[in-house]
Formats: sequence, C-alpha cells, structure tokens
Amino acid sequence: MKLSITGGKSFEINAGATIYETLKANGVFLVSPCGGKGTCGKCQVKVTSGSVAVKSYGKLGQQERHNGIVPACQTSTTSDLHIEIPEHSKLVLGGKIAVSIFKDTAAYLQSYGTGIDPLAKRVSLTLPPPSIQDNIGDLQRLTRSLDGMGITNMRFSHEFVSTLMETLREGGFNAVVSYSKPNDTTFDAISAYPHEQCKGRFGLAIDIGTTTVVVYLVDLSNGTVIDIGSTYNSQTKYGDDVITRIVHATEGGGLADLRDTVAGDINTIVDFFSSKHNIDRHEVEAAVISGNTTMSHIFWGLNPASIREDPYIPTVNYYPIWRGAQARLNINPLAAVYTSPSVASYVGGDIVTGILASKMHRSPGISLFMDIGTNAEVAIGNDEWIMTAACSAGPCFEGGGIKFGMRATQGAIESIKIDPATLTPSVSVIGGGTPTGICGSGMIDAIVELYKTGIINQKGVFNPAKSPLVREGEDGLEFLIYKSDIPQRDIVLTTVDMENLIRAKAAIFAGVSLLLREAGLTLDVLEKVYVAGGFGNSLNVEKAVMLGMIPDLPPDKYIFLGNTSIIGAYLTLMSDTLRKDLESIASKMTYIELSVVGGYMDEYMSAMFIPHTDLSKFPSVAAALGL
Amino acid sequence: MKLSITGGKSFEINAGATIYETLKANGVFLVSPCGGKGTCGKCQVKVTSGSVAVKSYGKLGQQERHNGIVPACQTSTTSDLHIEIPEHSKLVLGGKIAVSIFKDTAAYLQSYGTGIDPLAKRVSLTLPPPSIQDNIGDLQRLTRSLDGMGITNMRFSHEFVSTLMETLREGGFNAVVSYSKPNDTTFDAISAYPHEQCKGRFGLAIDIGTTTVVVYLVDLSNGTVIDIGSTYNSQTKYGDDVITRIVHATEGGGLADLRDTVAGDINTIVDFFSSKHNIDRHEVEAAVISGNTTMSHIFWGLNPASIREDPYIPTVNYYPIWRGAQARLNINPLAAVYTSPSVASYVGGDIVTGILASKMHRSPGISLFMDIGTNAEVAIGNDEWIMTAACSAGPCFEGGGIKFGMRATQGAIESIKIDPATLTPSVSVIGGGTPTGICGSGMIDAIVELYKTGIINQKGVFNPAKSPLVREGEDGLEFLIYKSDIPQRDIVLTTVDMENLIRAKAAIFAGVSLLLREAGLTLDVLEKVYVAGGFGNSLNVEKAVMLGMIPDLPPDKYIFLGNTSIIGAYLTLMSDTLRKDLESIASKMTYIELSVVGGYMDEYMSAMFIPHTDLSKFPSVAAALGL
Repeated sequence: MKLSITGGKSFEINAGATIYETLKANGVFLVSPCGGKGTCGKCQVKVTSGSVAVKSYGKLGQQERHNGIVPACQTSTTSDLHIEIPEHSKLVLGGKIAVSIFKDTAAYLQSYGTGIDPLAKRVSLTLPPPSIQDNIGDLQRLTRSLDGMGITNMRFSHEFVSTLMETLREGGFNAVVSYSKPNDTTFDAISAYPHEQCKGRFGLAIDIGTTTVVVYLVDLSNGTVIDIGSTYNSQTKYGDDVITRIVHATEGGGLADLRDTVAGDINTIVDFFSSKHNIDRHEVEAAVISGNTTMSHIFWGLNPASIREDPYIPTVNYYPIWRGAQARLNINPLAAVYTSPSVASYVGGDIVTGILASKMHRSPGISLFMDIGTNAEVAIGNDEWIMTAACSAGPCFEGGGIKFGMRATQGAIESIKIDPATLTPSVSVIGGGTPTGICGSGMIDAIVELYKTGIINQKGVFNPAKSPLVREGEDGLEFLIYKSDIPQRDIVLTTVDMENLIRAKAAIFAGVSLLLREAGLTLDVLEKVYVAGGFGNSLNVEKAVMLGMIPDLPPDKYIFLGNTSIIGAYLTLMSDTLRKDLESIASKMTYIELSVVGGYMDEYMSAMFIPHTDLSKFPSVAAALGL
Repeated sequence: MKLSITGGKSFEINAGATIYETLKANGVFLVSPCGGKGTCGKCQVKVTSGSVAVKSYGKLGQQERHNGIVPACQTSTTSDLHIEIPEHSKLVLGGKIAVSIFKDTAAYLQSYGTGIDPLAKRVSLTLPPPSIQDNIGDLQRLTRSLDGMGITNMRFSHEFVSTLMETLREGGFNAVVSYSKPNDTTFDAISAYPHEQCKGRFGLAIDIGTTTVVVYLVDLSNGTVIDIGSTYNSQTKYGDDVITRIVHATEGGGLADLRDTVAGDINTIVDFFSSKHNIDRHEVEAAVISGNTTMSHIFWGLNPASIREDPYIPTVNYYPIWRGAQARLNINPLAAVYTSPSVASYVGGDIVTGILASKMHRSPGISLFMDIGTNAEVAIGNDEWIMTAACSAGPCFEGGGIKFGMRATQGAIESIKIDPATLTPSVSVIGGGTPTGICGSGMIDAIVELYKTGIINQKGVFNPAKSPLVREGEDGLEFLIYKSDIPQRDIVLTTVDMENLIRAKAAIFAGVSLLLREAGLTLDVLEKVYVAGGFGNSLNVEKAVMLGMIPDLPPDKYIFLGNTSIIGAYLTLMSDTLRKDLESIASKMTYIELSVVGGYMDEYMSAMFIPHTDLSKFPSVAAALGL
C-alpha cells in the first residue's frame, strides 16, 4: 500500500506498520517525546483519504478527531493513505546552541589554551616505493616511516591491514594515516588513505540524555561545529527514566532493543548530516560519547543491572576507546569512539564533561555545579577537589510527570505572571501562538506566582476559595493556566503536578545542602554557581530562589550554561589534553551517596516548603515576601 | 534424497551436490590431494544402489568403473544412494610426528631452557566484592587487582567488557582472566571466567603448507601435545603452487574462496579435536600460524597480488597479533592469533619457525638449513647472521608434477632398488600392499638407480636399448617401476617426470651453491645440514648426494627434522621468549634474491647433470662410481 504526503513524497506502507514507523524509516521524523508509545499525543498527522485503524487516541481531543487528526504512532492502515503533516508535528533535526558563551564553540575551545589535538589525528607520509634493494613489506614500510616521526609501536587492526596493499599503490606510496593516541605511549591506527583521496576529517560529539540526544558534527582540523542535530531519545517508549530503562533492559530482556533504539536515533542524525554536507561516513573518524552511567552502558550494550542493585556498581567507569563498528554508528567502522568516564552509578560521564565545560576544575575559588535534566546532579569544588552527589529529583523540569509538561521548545509556556489584583495569569509562549504545554521555567514561575498570590500555600496545596481558576479536575484540584477552545487542551497545573514539583525542588536543594555540609562549607563560600541543563538562559534565578530550589545567592553568582554535556564532549573530541583533564576530573570527584551519609531525610523534609522551613537560609526571599 | 553409507550413517544429499561435498559437510572426510577438483582420482567411493551422474572419471580405470567405483567429487545423484567407502579413500584426521627428536615435544621445548610462558596466559584473581564504601566499577575493580600484580595498562576489548558484569558475579568476584602480552609493556585481555568454571586452556600450532595443513592441539599449561591433525590444503583445487593461488586470488577474484577454503580445512581439524577431547572452543585461547608468505596472506585475507609482481613485496612481514574471530577459526573469538614473520615474499614464516626449531640460530658453528616442501628454501648462518634464499624447485618431491607422484603416506613407493644384473626394480611400499604412487624418497632412489644401471644418462634421458621396462608411454618414453593388474595403474616414471626431477634438484643445489658463494664460504665450513620437509627420516643421504641434490658431505653432518614449521609454531605458542627469538631470527635473516645477484643460471645449468658437471664438487660420488 501507498502512504502519500501532501507536498509530494510517497512511500510503501505495510499492513500492521504504523504511520510513525513508516515515516521514520523513510527519513520523515515527527515530534514524539514519548518515543512512539502513544502517550504524548504529539505525532499528529491529518488523514485526508484512506481508511485507518487507530489503536488509541490518547491525549487527542474530540475536535482534533473530528478534523481527521490521528496519533501517527498508534495508526496503521488497510488501504492507500494520504496524509498531511501539520507544522507542529514536524521534528526539526538540527538545532541551535542556547547559551551564548558556547556560541562560538571553536573560540571556547581556544580559551582553554591547549590547542587543537583531536581524538583522531592524521599524518601524511611519502614512502619510498619498494625495490629489490628495499623490499620490506608494506606494513613495515609504513611503520619505518612512522617511527621516523616519533609515532612508534602503532597498533594495526586486521581491517586496517586488509586494504593496505591497494591503498599504498593507489597513492603511489603517498598515504595519509589517521590514528588515535589512547595514552602517552600508545598509537592506534584508524584508516589509511591514498594521499589524493584524503579530503575532510570529521568527528562527532554526542550527548545521550535520558530524554534527548544531541549530536555535533565537528571539523577535526579546526574545531568548527559544522552542524548540530538533536532528537528525542526513542528509548523513552520503554520508560521515562533510567530506572525503568534498566528494568526493561534486565527483567524485560530488552537491552538489545534499547541499544538499537538509541543507536538508531544517533544514526538518524548522522545520516542526515552525511547527506546534507556530502560527507562520506569513512571520513568520520572519531566520536565522543557523553551520557549518564546508564545511557553509556546501554549505548555499548553493557548490562546495566548492577547499577540499580545495592551497592550500585556500574560495569565500567573508565571506558577503553572502542571502535565505530562496535558502537554501531554509521561512521568509519574503525573510528575511535571515546566515552566520558563516570564517577558512580548516578553521577555519569555527562556530569564529568559538564564540569570540564564549566572550567570550575581550573579555578581555586569554590563553585557549585548543578545539572538539572531528567535527573539532577550537583558538584562542589575547585581546582583541587570536587565532591558530587545525585539528587532524586526526577524529570519534572523537563516535563516528565507533569500533566502538560514539555521541554523548552516551540509552544511551551516559558513564563507566567499572575496579576495580584485580578489573580488572572498571563503567559509567554516560546515561538508565540497557542501554547501546547508548560516547560521547566514556566513551572517555576507558576508555582512562585501561585504562592505569592496565596492560591497555593507553603506546601503547594491549592486554596479553592482564592480563585475561580482553581477547579476540580480529573486528578483533584487544578489551576487553569491557559483556557483553550478545545476543553481537553486547557493547560492546567494539577495537585499531583504541585506535589511532584515540590518534591523535585526539595530533592535538589537537599542535595546541595548535604553536599555543602559534607564538605564542611557554608553557602557564602560559593564564588560561582553553574547551572546546566535544559533551563539554559530561561531560568529566572530570583523565582527559582523564591521557590527554594537553588541557594539564596546574588543573581550575579549564577552562570547558566545550558547543555554542558555536549560542550564537554566537543572539548574532549578536539583535544587530547582536555581528554586527560576530563579523566583527571573524574578521578578527583568524590561521590557522596546521599542516602548513606545520614541527615538526607531531614534536609529533604525541611525543603518541602516554599521556599524552606528555615527561612534564615533564604534571607532575600524572607525580605521580599515581608516574612 | 538420502545418501547412506555401509556401516550405518545416512545424510540428506541435495540435487546437484557432489557426494564429496555432502560427506565433508557431514564430517566424513575422503582422501583428496587435488582438493576436490577431479584430477587425482583418490576420493573413490563404491555405489551399491541408486543412480548417479558422473561429470568425469578422471584417472579411474575401466576395471574400477566396472566395479561401481566413482570419484566422489565428480559425482552427484538424482535418487537415494547407498555407497561403500573403501579403506584407502578414508582420510585419517590426526597423524604422527615422523621425526624422533621432536617426538616428546614438551621435552624439546624444555631443552631451550626458556620455561613455559604461552601466548595466552592466565591469572587468577580474588576481588573484594563491591560495597558502598568501595563502589568502583567492575572493570576498574579488575584493573586495580591486575595493577597490584604488575599487569598494568591491560587493554580490554568491547567483547571482553560486554560479559564482565555477569562473569564477576557468577564467580562471587573470583575470576580468571586470560591475556596475551604482545610486547614487554602491553597486555591484551582475552577472556574472563568465573573461577570455578575455568577448566582447561588450549592452544593451536598451525602449519599451513601449500599442499597440507597440520594442526597441533596443545595444553597451554604444560606444553603437552594432546593431539595432531592433518589434512590436505583444499586450496589445491585452485592450483598446486603459490603462483597459481595468487593468480586465482587476484585475477580470478578468488581471495575470499581461498581464505574460506583453508580456514575450513583448519576448522575441520579443530572441530574434530573439540568433539574428540570434549573441549569447549572458548578454551582454545591462542594459535600460532606458520606458513609461507602467500599462505599467511591468504589465511588473513590479505591481497597477495604484489608478492608476485616485481619487486615482490608482501603486505606484511611482521604480523600484529589479531583475534580468533578475525582469523575465522572455530576457537575463542578473542583468542590471540600470532603469525610467524616472513623474511620476504618467497621466504616465509614457515622457514623462520623452521630455523627456530633447528636451533641453528643458537650455534656459533655455521649450518645449512634446507626446507624441501612444495618449494625449497635454504638458509646458511649461525648465532650471529643468517642468509636465506628461495629455490624455484617446485613441488616434485611432494608428488606435484610427477605422473604417479604422491606424498609419503600409505601406498607410496618410498624406496627402489634396481638389480644391476637383471635390471628389474624391486620396491618398498609405505604400509605394505599394492603401491598407488611414488613419493620423494622413492623418486630419488629411482633416478639414482636408473643412472647407476645406465637406463638413463647423466642428463636423465632414457636409453630404450638398455631395458625392456623402458617403453613408449603417452608422454614419450617411460620406465615401468611397478606392473599393476590394471594397466592404467602401472606405476611409471616418464620423461617429463625425469626432466622435472632434474630441474628441481638442480634448483636446490644451485641455490645452496649461490648462497654459499654470497656468504663467501665453501662447503667444508658447514658443521650441520638440517633437512626439513616431507622427506623426514626417509631421505637417503647417500642417494640424494649421488643425485647431486644436496652437498657432498659426510652423512653424519645431516640431520633430518621433518616438519620444522609445525614444531617452530609449537615453540612460539608455548614461550614468549621463543616468540621474541623467532622475531629476532626473522630480523637477522638477509634475503638473497637468486635471480638478481648474478651467476644463478650458470650454477643451475651446471647442476642439470647427475650429479653435476663439476665432479670435484662431489668427490664421494666420483669415487663410488669410479669416475
């Protein structure tokens, strides 16, 4: 059967296959934060002709159904089908860097002063052609020349040698050899090329988040970021957080599925880069993977079971450099693929790259680093020591567990004001237009505004007498933030949302407090607070402080870094010196297991208020609220 | 359709498949020196019921055809078939060591005084189980313990790490790790086992000859040779010598075929060992490959084209240690597979292992080493220097190019006497019974006896007037050595055979002479002459001297070593020190290209007589013949 799209394209669709799968297989990507599980209702397409079977409409309202809108991941067909894809359903591969200090990534790399020395290096060789007098074998001819350049004891894979005879002769014994240098004394050959065929050389920086995947395509010769791609981590269909992924991998026997899924997401982007920039996959000779411990394990197909079991042990903290083929990436099969080391089961390689990107490891002053993503990790330290912990904050601020939660993309309510007089909310929407949900900064705004106007109390409980916008919803009381023409699309914050948000902010603040206590420090020693994660520049420090999520410090101590994991991966890709720094950061980081050191529950319970039970910790808030 | 065999077994046979292929696929091996090409006529089976299509009967006589004998490699069927396999058609996998000094291989290894330090080593580890206080990852737990034992910077493959989590927990953190040590500072992990599951550990010494393949199964813990297997190199079906193989690999696009073929031959033996000795393939953790340059290249799937083209350059002389999976062997996929280094395109790793096995590199006295196999290579030297050359001798003495030539196995005429009075030959046959051919030592005997009795002249030309046994054959004059009941099976030496044999012996002697001349030495400085190759103990020195094939030296200077390639491979497998010795031998060997140094043709032409045009080089022969 045929699936045709308004605008021209047309594909085969098999009986039983969903529209979503079929489009994806043909390079047409839809927005699908739930990974095609049928719960987010985002992968909407409009059926203009043909008959469909819809397994579940999920979040789609009556109005949308009337208009022929179906969730593509839940819809299959029994006839030829014609569809229209609304703009808001189209996934934009590619993206932009939110945070200005990383905007010129190559310049940021330069600011480290280490120069360019990428993971995959190249050397140009002019070998004397063989003769009866000089009749050593091809490989020895190569190594003789490399030895002369101080590149000694290079290790050659079977694949490398398999094509060497042809390569050397094609180039008239002028060749380019690419290699990596895993440590000071070891060289690993990647590929050899006839000299004249040697064009570009590229690398990938890859951030594997629990929720999203970001890939930088980098020119290894100068550090230019040629393109940026991002997509949802399709593993989401197997669960929102790392624990459900581990359960699926182990009890569900789904490790291979999860692995294929995330490799597929990355390869989708890589293939897109390849065709867009006309790059041969063999020219992509290096990649750096930055992810939390579970994501990194699953990426490499390593059983993550013990990460979840007391005493929470990963299989690997420091990963050897493995190959493109083993990574199942659509790049040079012999490419060097490096993985950022993790500190513990719940403080992963993404935090280590994050600290590298923040430069806090280079400063004698003490800094706090917070990465608020699908979970929250915090670190305190300076150029001599770093302590770190994971907070069980959950994915609220990325939209997880919040009824209308979403990431900070097109259509998200990113800030809210409630008029103190009328108690009416006004919202600002990313990209303008009708809002489709609410992102992290919007949630923080909302909760603070609701608190300030007395619509919720210190514990986040609604006061229905205060505003008619507090109404009875499916899950108890809820607050109407945005009234839609379609009642099902009214945007509300529910009682459950409130509970989740307060738990999350309490977990983050308790983590920071306990870590400071373990370090024997108080808040006032902090010179800088680096905030990484999806918030980026959109977090309103004043409101986050008022919520009691982050320490009550002057706003100018806060520096927003956005996605530090990808920047750290990029830095690691471009400089062996920074790769060594990365490993030295990881080895320097002392992991504090919050559930073990004692006092965590007290800190957590105290933080379950807005802003905190101990107002002396939030003097500016107390002053502002006149408490 | 069914193919059943007298005695019980029965297999499916497909339309179009030959009996030979079908039997081989089911583990029933037939003698087939031509590799199933249909030219040797050795894979005879008797069809007792069913109808067959025979593509070509080849060498089979009328009588045999009458008896229902068919060549299995040329015969397919269109019905159920019942066959009988005559004893002489059954290939015996397994074999024996011909030469006594290597009989107790482990004792021979001891005689080197290097101790046992095999290519694949094992270390037993008792790791502290992880706890919240000691929560480093599994791999770092392992390396911490290895570091404590001085095994530092071990390299771990992705495959190794993939199963580590389960392995450590299965053994309660008691584990055995096997590894190799490619050089003084590098360790490569092979496999990890839970402690209690760790049983035997085995290695393979593999001699890949152009004509035959020999495999030793070795207990790596003590050097015991558990079993020996040998088979024909089935590549023979693509050509008898290395040149035709290279042509097939390159011009015929048959490199993959050739590679699969020899891997298949080795795996047939390995599978046989596995089931006979109840060995898990994962317990076979190391292998050493010894072969000539072309055989080693093809084994690894390396294009051998440039070996054959001026200036005769192999892709590799010194092979990295690669893995079992890359070698396509049915052993541990991560097994360390080492390949004996070659000196030049026509002096391969088999000669280097041969010299290691001879110990000539340890003696200050000067020795001559000759390996007479499918080709002939010679080396002269001592513990300080070695010079080597390849002689274009061809495979005569292994049976190639000789009408009734065969290897020194069951049924071969191994010695011949011609009564000076009656001029009647009497023969001695290996294993007794009816002879089926004539092997190298038999040929040398025959030619010398024919010369002594005047049936041939100094140039090997028959004198038909001298004996009625000289008769007109298909290829000109021939001498009847053995009269069979079946005329087609009369065993003769033809004029062409004579020419080939004299060319071969002349090439060998010319090579030795030229090498001595290049070294500035004369025959009398030689303290020992080591003769390796199929001849083994069966070569009659006196007759070989009389033929002018080997130097005229006292018989007690000659030492017959048989297959030194396999012994050298075994020594290399069992001791890293001897592996280093092997590499130092290879680097010490100076290759002399006989066709380049000048004077070769003169030496060769002078040696085209029996024994030589210059009788002063053969004083004992001159004396014996009264010349």
